[in-house]
Amino acid sequence: MKKLVGKLVVFASLIFVTACGANDKQWRQLSLENTVLLTLPQGKVVIELAPQFSPNHVRQFSELVKQGFYDGTKFYRVIDGFVAQAGPKDGSEKDKSVPILAMESHWPIDDKWSFTKVQDNDLFAQQTGFKDGFAIAQHLDGTKGEAWLTHCPGVLAMARENKADSASSHFYVVIGQAPRYLDKIMTIFGRVVYGMQHVQAIQRTTSIEGEYAVDSREHTSIVNMQLMADVPKKDRIIIEVEDTQSAAFVERLEKRRARNGEFFYNKPPPVLDVCQVPIRSRLIK
Amino acid sequence: MKKLVGKLVVFASLIFVTACGANDKQWRQLSLENTVLLTLPQGKVVIELAPQFSPNHVRQFSELVKQGFYDGTKFYRVIDGFVAQAGPKDGSEKDKSVPILAMESHWPIDDKWSFTKVQDNDLFAQQTGFKDGFAIAQHLDGTKGEAWLTHCPGVLAMARENKADSASSHFYVVIGQAPRYLDKIMTIFGRVVYGMQHVQAIQRTTSIEGEYAVDSREHTSIVNMQLMADVPKKDRIIIEVEDTQSAAFVERLEKRRARNGEFFYNKPPPVLDVCQVPIRSRLIK
Repeated sequence: MKKLVGKLVVFASLIFVTACGANDKQWRQLSLENTVLLTLPQGKVVIELAPQFSPNHVRQFSELVKQGFYDGTKFYRVIDGFVAQAGPKDGSEKDKSVPILAMESHWPIDDKWSFTKVQDNDLFAQQTGFKDGFAIAQHLDGTKGEAWLTHCPGVLAMARENKADSASSHFYVVIGQAPRYLDKIMTIFGRVVYGMQHVQAIQRTTSIEGEYAVDSREHTSIVNMQLMADVPKKDRIIIEVEDTQSAAFVERLEKRRARNGEFFYNKPPPVLDVCQVPIRSRLIK
Repeated sequence: MKKLVGKLVVFASLIFVTACGANDKQWRQLSLENTVLLTLPQGKVVIELAPQFSPNHVRQFSELVKQGFYDGTKFYRVIDGFVAQAGPKDGSEKDKSVPILAMESHWPIDDKWSFTKVQDNDLFAQQTGFKDGFAIAQHLDGTKGEAWLTHCPGVLAMARENKADSASSHFYVVIGQAPRYLDKIMTIFGRVVYGMQHVQAIQRTTSIEGEYAVDSREHTSIVNMQLMADVPKKDRIIIEVEDTQSAAFVERLEKRRARNGEFFYNKPPPVLDVCQVPIRSRLIK
């Protein structure tokens, strides 16, 4: 039943965006098929996948999650302020068993493409904004352009070798200041919507010069990873996230930009860093 | 003996900056008087203070640290992706015992003021760069302007009430995407140079809507905080940090901007977010 409701909400939201540019529903429930429950030793994390932007990556990742592929694998490259990366042992049978994916890092747009704008003349892009809760950046020249998901804290992207089309199963989560120089050359396919503090507590693996190396036995393991649809009903974590196409969200953006509170005795510039705008989640169960 | 060496290095570096704009020493040792050892239950953190930018805040904070003022106090406001804030119980005798400080958020500069430039036309400032390892932003109009420390991850700043001059002892560490809208209205007075992963592991205190409230007994306590000069020699953590005025650092900046590696099969824009440039530390002892 929950799935059906989820689909109806998405459908209704599309109508609203088309009809009047903003949805009147402030919250949207995540679909159980597009949500992953990542269990770490220190706590539970919920990830929303983005099949509308990176369909092949989401399909393969979901399939691997269903198979229990990631259970017991480790976060083997964790650099404070940068990324936490996990996957099977490099070059192992398990590693080699997974098909290579073609990049899904950006897509063409035209002047009819809609999103919730955050900022013009961002440091890395002509415009930034949100679409379906994901931070995006875009460039539009007349009627033609391109858009892409941008590397804000909490996004999941697939790691790769030097070649563009070389990602398979190793993924990373951004845990520091947005490394936006990775935009358009990596495929982002999801984002953490709950439990980011547990991702932040993953054991760092790279030590600074002069410090002892972290033993791989201390690396944080993935206890397990499941599609929320496959989690027994009583153990599901049901999350709603702010609908970034909603009128309420747009209003909140503008308040954030204006900084009218008394605390702001000198007004900051009326600009917003798209990666510094929190998209709120709420726990339903 | 270590202090003397530290001072000589700083003195030598000033000569180089004046003489040729860049220092040939890539690393600088921190002075023991301007370094704080923060012990958390999960590990040790080293903080460099910034008396050259915020002398009164550093003087008062150092005095409080010397007195053991913060020992046993809690991080009572910890918001994932934003800040971890600590201090004595609001309105307590201890809280009220500390003098109020006047803001030290920015300072006037002229066209002779030097720093290591990172970026023009940053989203929040005319220019960004580094000075003494701290990320700064500045505005210069002809021969007059102002500069300020900017809110990158890892900086320490003093919390305050709505009034500008209302900070005293409550401080916060930035643990998420740089909240640069706080620049010039808060006093930044230090930054974490070692052990940021332990700061990232501080218990979050604000839960999302629908989740149980975190009991204050679970809040992370400061085990103790000492000036490194007051730490017994055998327990000191001696850190060197990259000298951001050095030729080696400037070269590293330009390499980072150029992204010439094979991995970058499509070049990102040749721009740098000052808060996304890591300033390396190394552990000497």
